[in-house]
Amino acid sequence: MTLESIRYRAGSLQVLNQLLLPHQTAYDEIRTVQDAYEAIKSMKVRGAPAIAIVGCLSLAVELRAGVGGDDPVTFIRESLCHLTSARPTAVNMGRAARELMEFAENESMEKNSEQLRESVIAWIEDMLERDVNDNRKIGNNGAQHILSGVPRDSVTILTHCNTGSLATAGYGTALGVVRSLHALGRLKRVYCTETRPYNQGSRLTAYEAVAEGIPATLITDSMAALTMREMDITAVVVGADRVVANGDTANKVGTYQLAIAAKHHGIPFYVAAPSTSCDLSLESGRDIIIEVRPPEELTSINGVPIAAKGIDVWNPAFDVTPHQLITGGIITELGVFLPSELQAALTGRLTAL
Amino acid sequence: MTLESIRYRAGSLQVLNQLLLPHQTAYDEIRTVQDAYEAIKSMKVRGAPAIAIVGCLSLAVELRAGVGGDDPVTFIRESLCHLTSARPTAVNMGRAARELMEFAENESMEKNSEQLRESVIAWIEDMLERDVNDNRKIGNNGAQHILSGVPRDSVTILTHCNTGSLATAGYGTALGVVRSLHALGRLKRVYCTETRPYNQGSRLTAYEAVAEGIPATLITDSMAALTMREMDITAVVVGADRVVANGDTANKVGTYQLAIAAKHHGIPFYVAAPSTSCDLSLESGRDIIIEVRPPEELTSINGVPIAAKGIDVWNPAFDVTPHQLITGGIITELGVFLPSELQAALTGRLTAL
Repeated sequence: MTLESIRYRAGSLQVLNQLLLPHQTAYDEIRTVQDAYEAIKSMKVRGAPAIAIVGCLSLAVELRAGVGGDDPVTFIRESLCHLTSARPTAVNMGRAARELMEFAENESMEKNSEQLRESVIAWIEDMLERDVNDNRKIGNNGAQHILSGVPRDSVTILTHCNTGSLATAGYGTALGVVRSLHALGRLKRVYCTETRPYNQGSRLTAYEAVAEGIPATLITDSMAALTMREMDITAVVVGADRVVANGDTANKVGTYQLAIAAKHHGIPFYVAAPSTSCDLSLESGRDIIIEVRPPEELTSINGVPIAAKGIDVWNPAFDVTPHQLITGGIITELGVFLPSELQAALTGRLTAL
Repeated sequence: MTLESIRYRAGSLQVLNQLLLPHQTAYDEIRTVQDAYEAIKSMKVRGAPAIAIVGCLSLAVELRAGVGGDDPVTFIRESLCHLTSARPTAVNMGRAARELMEFAENESMEKNSEQLRESVIAWIEDMLERDVNDNRKIGNNGAQHILSGVPRDSVTILTHCNTGSLATAGYGTALGVVRSLHALGRLKRVYCTETRPYNQGSRLTAYEAVAEGIPATLITDSMAALTMREMDITAVVVGADRVVANGDTANKVGTYQLAIAAKHHGIPFYVAAPSTSCDLSLESGRDIIIEVRPPEELTSINGVPIAAKGIDVWNPAFDVTPHQLITGGIITELGVFLPSELQAALTGRLTAL
């Protein structure tokens, strides 16, 4: 069974409501752009790639129902503008909106509104397919690279946060690599950190693993180094929020600590991300600002207090792993690159952010 | 204000009920050895030193009330046997029981039952005082050692788990070092990891810090390396469950990972423990067996599930930090020693385990 976070067929869209996970598996119908806006805003859908896909697919659903009438371009523009505002920090929705708008405007010069409608729907459906295909390429590239370095029949992976079907259009990035190894029959086991404070590991990655029968073990974030020492970890594979020109990588807080521990144990450390998550406009990780989130994420769970009242809290949402610690490589749909090779490999292949 | 986990005056004993922390501060009256047994068994009282003190003090309370009559030695023996069985893995209660029994038997040769009763009570009250004094010495030794290495006015410490008043007769070991620095006006701030999965950091250490006005910030375990890089950490100080002859140290899981991160950042890493926590009978940490605890500690909080159902869990309760990573030293009441100096420093000063 493959876990579906997004269910789409022509004219119909449903999303897995991540607010109810892991306790309840329920799909919500997305009939309009406004439905998608609300699902993104409330975090029923999360993960930058998934946000962009769901936003655009909701537009395709409305276009197929004939919304926008004789002036679909105006409807498309207003819809994309609205969708981008739901989570303004998610880079992928903004990038998709600009590319789609440019495409729609070009098409509108040659086509009538019915033809335009069709070609925009096709573009969006192609985007869904492309995202899943890119993830499958990431999974395959990563799996082959990891396997090429080991003589063993099967490998053991350690991962962090959630980078699977639930964060993308499907399959996933770092968890896509794990899926590929499992599909090849070469995965012995994956260790998932619970990923405090938001628990994406215990809630989401564990959920995906159980749903698909991937052999997986949950550990606390504090057990990662001990796991590396005791459990014969072949490689550590994580996702990325942003990879900059020199290979420095911003990702979920805790990634930096994992990279240090991997280096200490001589275990290859990989970052898996689509090329669209690479931002060559920044030279190094020093230019990335660390987002600090509310204390309540640490001091309570589901609204119930778990910490002493009155304690100060520091809650940075992510950290930057210096490229020197990314010893395995950066796994993209275009190949696996050392941090020092990344800029040359991607130059000219990315649209500007 | 100093937080009191144990309130004792001649004939009266109360313990802070740690099951209710951090939400409620309530003291339970301990009138009998059986009361103490139940408080230890149910974990109202935890921490190996605290368990031994509370057990012995409950015996002193009963002896002062005249229990044991004309044959106090039999009553003392049976009481100590019962108390030791409450948490059989806690080394300190067993060590105290053997020492106290030997003392009582010697005294009984020369004294009548009333005199024996008085001298045993005095021995126990002395034990309480000695434990607090040893902790104060640990605190002072550690503070001086840390301050001697830095030119700055004030220092920033990172600690793990709970090693304070709540785990000892008072003051604490690693947190005792923090208290001493604060009392000297030299503590800028202490960062406390929440210490998953049992949350001793967020529940207990944070509670002690708030109660005493020690400037403290709570972080997740995954943020420790980032904190070391961003927050100018002077030293990492942790407690110990057991220090063996070569200096390898078993402590709460996550300690090993902190030691690796400290080494990476060139930050001195200290272990603070009374000499009674040192076990020279084991040569290296390889001889220590890692206790694995129930999965539910990770998958639920206060009985509420927080992880995907059906996921495998690995839950080791502690890990072993190799002596090479204990770069600051081992802080005891007898002085601060490098791991390589420990055995020579303690030989002849400890009773056998």
